[in-house]
Amino acid sequence: MIHSLKRLLIGRPLKSGELGEQKLNKKKALAILSSDALSSVAYGPEQILIVLVTISAAAFWYSIPIALGVLVLLTALILSYRQIIFAYPHGGGAYVVSKNNLGVNPGLIAGGSLLVDYILTVAVSVSAGTDAITSAFPALHPYNVEIAIVFVILLTILNLRGVTESASVLAYPVYLFVFALFILIGAGIYNILTGHVSPDLHTPVGTPVAGISLFILLRAFASGSSALTGVEAISNAIPNFKNPAPNNAAKTLIAMGTLLAILFTGIVYLAYYYGIIPNAEVTVVSQIAEETFGRNFMYYFIQGTTALILILAANTGYTAFPLLAVNLAKDKFIPRMFTVRGDRLGYSNGIIILSILSIILIIAFKGQTEHLIPLYAVGVFIPFTLSQTGMMVKWLREKPAGWMPKFIINTTGAVICFIVTIIFFLTKFGQVWSILVFLPIIIVLFHQIRKHYDAVGDQLRITTCEPAIPIEGNVIIVPVAGITHVVENSLNYAKSLSPDQIIAVYISFEREDERKFEEKWKKWQPDVRIVTLQSHYRSIINPLTKFVDTVEKKARESNYKVTVVIPQFIPKKGWHNILHNQSSLLIRAFLLYRRNVIITTVPYHLKK
Amino acid sequence: MIHSLKRLLIGRPLKSGELGEQKLNKKKALAILSSDALSSVAYGPEQILIVLVTISAAAFWYSIPIALGVLVLLTALILSYRQIIFAYPHGGGAYVVSKNNLGVNPGLIAGGSLLVDYILTVAVSVSAGTDAITSAFPALHPYNVEIAIVFVILLTILNLRGVTESASVLAYPVYLFVFALFILIGAGIYNILTGHVSPDLHTPVGTPVAGISLFILLRAFASGSSALTGVEAISNAIPNFKNPAPNNAAKTLIAMGTLLAILFTGIVYLAYYYGIIPNAEVTVVSQIAEETFGRNFMYYFIQGTTALILILAANTGYTAFPLLAVNLAKDKFIPRMFTVRGDRLGYSNGIIILSILSIILIIAFKGQTEHLIPLYAVGVFIPFTLSQTGMMVKWLREKPAGWMPKFIINTTGAVICFIVTIIFFLTKFGQVWSILVFLPIIIVLFHQIRKHYDAVGDQLRITTCEPAIPIEGNVIIVPVAGITHVVENSLNYAKSLSPDQIIAVYISFEREDERKFEEKWKKWQPDVRIVTLQSHYRSIINPLTKFVDTVEKKARESNYKVTVVIPQFIPKKGWHNILHNQSSLLIRAFLLYRRNVIITTVPYHLKK
Repeated sequence: MIHSLKRLLIGRPLKSGELGEQKLNKKKALAILSSDALSSVAYGPEQILIVLVTISAAAFWYSIPIALGVLVLLTALILSYRQIIFAYPHGGGAYVVSKNNLGVNPGLIAGGSLLVDYILTVAVSVSAGTDAITSAFPALHPYNVEIAIVFVILLTILNLRGVTESASVLAYPVYLFVFALFILIGAGIYNILTGHVSPDLHTPVGTPVAGISLFILLRAFASGSSALTGVEAISNAIPNFKNPAPNNAAKTLIAMGTLLAILFTGIVYLAYYYGIIPNAEVTVVSQIAEETFGRNFMYYFIQGTTALILILAANTGYTAFPLLAVNLAKDKFIPRMFTVRGDRLGYSNGIIILSILSIILIIAFKGQTEHLIPLYAVGVFIPFTLSQTGMMVKWLREKPAGWMPKFIINTTGAVICFIVTIIFFLTKFGQVWSILVFLPIIIVLFHQIRKHYDAVGDQLRITTCEPAIPIEGNVIIVPVAGITHVVENSLNYAKSLSPDQIIAVYISFEREDERKFEEKWKKWQPDVRIVTLQSHYRSIINPLTKFVDTVEKKARESNYKVTVVIPQFIPKKGWHNILHNQSSLLIRAFLLYRRNVIITTVPYHLKK
Repeated sequence: MIHSLKRLLIGRPLKSGELGEQKLNKKKALAILSSDALSSVAYGPEQILIVLVTISAAAFWYSIPIALGVLVLLTALILSYRQIIFAYPHGGGAYVVSKNNLGVNPGLIAGGSLLVDYILTVAVSVSAGTDAITSAFPALHPYNVEIAIVFVILLTILNLRGVTESASVLAYPVYLFVFALFILIGAGIYNILTGHVSPDLHTPVGTPVAGISLFILLRAFASGSSALTGVEAISNAIPNFKNPAPNNAAKTLIAMGTLLAILFTGIVYLAYYYGIIPNAEVTVVSQIAEETFGRNFMYYFIQGTTALILILAANTGYTAFPLLAVNLAKDKFIPRMFTVRGDRLGYSNGIIILSILSIILIIAFKGQTEHLIPLYAVGVFIPFTLSQTGMMVKWLREKPAGWMPKFIINTTGAVICFIVTIIFFLTKFGQVWSILVFLPIIIVLFHQIRKHYDAVGDQLRITTCEPAIPIEGNVIIVPVAGITHVVENSLNYAKSLSPDQIIAVYISFEREDERKFEEKWKKWQPDVRIVTLQSHYRSIINPLTKFVDTVEKKARESNYKVTVVIPQFIPKKGWHNILHNQSSLLIRAFLLYRRNVIITTVPYHLKK
């Protein structure tokens, strides 16, 4: 039943050879990899105004130079990541770039930040989208958490179905959102040009403002640059592109950067010209839409597509997290299971872990994840800085033809990103300090895991270890619970292996019982030695373990191996298992993990 | 760590021989077995008044004859259960009596109702006690559910420590409660006798009341008799008494009945004489205490001990549920695990299951379990009726010397209990209908479980089945994942068993890999046949299972047994397991439960 449900939800399994068909063309890639970046247009401009409003509405004209600053940063990032795509065509983004050029630990800092960040992406985006929906339908408000979880589960199923299928579904809303914002910006500028908007609504650029400081401006700039989160997603996901993957990825990146620049500048400009004042109840985009169209169909269309893209922004996390996890797992810093492709050729373990962790976040923060946004932005700018510094080092080290302009681009990017990171720490320390706690923890964990894998590898490799000790003979111990067909079956099997000795062990709780059993046994199996052990504490494991230890110690002296043959009857239906004491499982777990004996389970299948 | 925590909480394990020391003397038994019955004095009288107040305050005098009716019922129940104790000195109460005299299904109805009832006892009592506490400290009110759960967990730990220890702790509050109520009743009667209470507060007995009907009176009587829940606990728990158990149990029962009768009559009488009107905010006992003492120390003492005994009433469930479960499990109607004694000689599985189920109830009803009380009362009166009917049948069938008075006692009890049950269904159907749904389900389940155990017994018994097929030889299959020490270790073991054939199986995901591996293998282990299987869907289980099936089918034809030897390396620390794909566990589970092959796990313990 579970199996057919799985098929229904995620579809038939795909052969490994069908991987090529699961690759993305540019249009679909743009949709699923840029939803995170594009969706931030819905809140980025607002973040700038929220900082400036603390001075006065007269300071709003600063949003124009700040937006230009963000555009410069965006250009630097896009150009830099374009260079990364060609330099590292197998993907990995900040992690691979930092690791290769700066060393393992910077790489792990970048990788760790991004892993955490993608989890935050999912939690924050889905919560924000849910909020948008429940603001429209207040009756749903008490169910915020449940609705958000349902969206996460839907995204999980979609992604387990495979990359192309989710791209097909998600492409529409992303393009609808872009389309809606284009109309909004176009109509807004038309209104301005035709003189339908009063020029008195805003203070001219350059008006002196009392109380403005560099600190405030930097803070507004940092807030605005949170609109750039998600830019790195494409460079992580190059393996998902159709061939020639790097070229396609680079073109997609440029397209995304252009769209982001147009939408961001447009919204900032309209907000400035309309003199929009940020408001906790109504978003800036919503105010612009209302000014432009009034509350008509277009207004609701823009609101609806915005809510939708906020939820879909989470999908960027779903695309990038599993691929980053594969890179970390290949380097043995996280469990190997992240490298396994699922039925539909996606890295299902990464998808499932991402869902579980983001659902935990949503529940822990009761769906109110807004104050995680600064943390999330820092988690992006740390790897930005590291990857661009990595590229600087690369150019300096390799000095290929025409490296100077490339070096300048990356240096500009690195410096700006570094400054933005510092500004975040200076201006929002209360919200971002926790990254200073968990990043070191994650990195220690990465190293621990790596150490373990290396140790295991050393011990397993045939060339490095002492030769195996030859086995001179076998002793078989059969724990028996009574005189039944199950025991008979196991004894017959043990005899067929012609070991040097078979010992049946019976554990009794009462002395009376012990004698009776021995007598019965001698009549039934006179040729198998029976040992009865008394258990004062009603435990089967303790006396049995002690006995096995004694036998094993003696056996080891003469290079004999000890095998414990466990008789187990298998009920016909799964639920029947709860009706039987699972002694055999317990015995197996205790002996296998703690003693050096071989465990053999002889099943006796019941017929009814 | 878990182990030492367990020791700290529940104490050192006890030897089976120490069971005698865990038995209860009469004083302790009275405390832990009567807390449920005695605590109902805190709400029983109130229930009568709540029904009568629907007519008018003038009808309150009817509480006196109704209380007399309850006393008659109580007397009949006590005398009847005294007879049950001597007739069934091994305990079991309603279940055993009904099963032996009326047949299996009436027994299961009684047993099933009581099992559910004890769960309700725990949930209802703990919730009521928590309510009493949070009424005193309103700041705690939002944490009702959490507090109730903490109490359940405390009771669980106490009971896991063992019967005598919980009795020692619980005896004080029970006796304090009895003591407090005695003082209250004594002081109240003293006040009345010395003329400190105006006789105008109540209407005299016999005053005609308009609108009174037999239906109302019966309903009030039924409500009042909910004070008798818990009376059967002693007859279930005879095995917990010191020897001579039946005599001690009978004496304890009489003592409990006497206390219950005095307290119940006293409270009803004072309530009547003081003209107390039931009030949602303040309980009747609290009103009486305030009238008698004012708001002084005694008032708070009475309130405090009442809250405490309401929580401790849950302990009756803890004592009776595991013992009833043992009786049902011995008859194979519920899983055998309920018959296993834990470290401290208590039936720990029963205790733990009871806790889990009552916590689920508390969570499901958000700590508001008051409306479960009628359900709970019906769940008691059904087994009351059945057990007394059972005793009637017993006397009629056996006719021992002087059976007539005994028969009359039981018949009276049976008739009254039957009427009370009917009244509950007639007057509170909306709250008790669910028992008509879940009792049949439970009974069907009981029979299903019994059928399964019988079927298993039949199949295991040596005398009944065909002789085992002789084993002519062994084929060993070793799934291998690479050329490592773990595999070498398993192969050496397999060879030492000198089977007729060893086949190593390698599952490859790519054709390339397949050829390379075969070449390497032939150099390494030229004498072991290697079979490589290609897996298009990246599953190890599917191709392996198919291969094993093919081999097994062939082997069976010549009475050969197939053993799958699974190489497994055991990391040094438990948490390391999550770093490795648990293929060996998966393979084992699939093959053992679904195929007729023997599974051998050869551990390779890593040293670091």
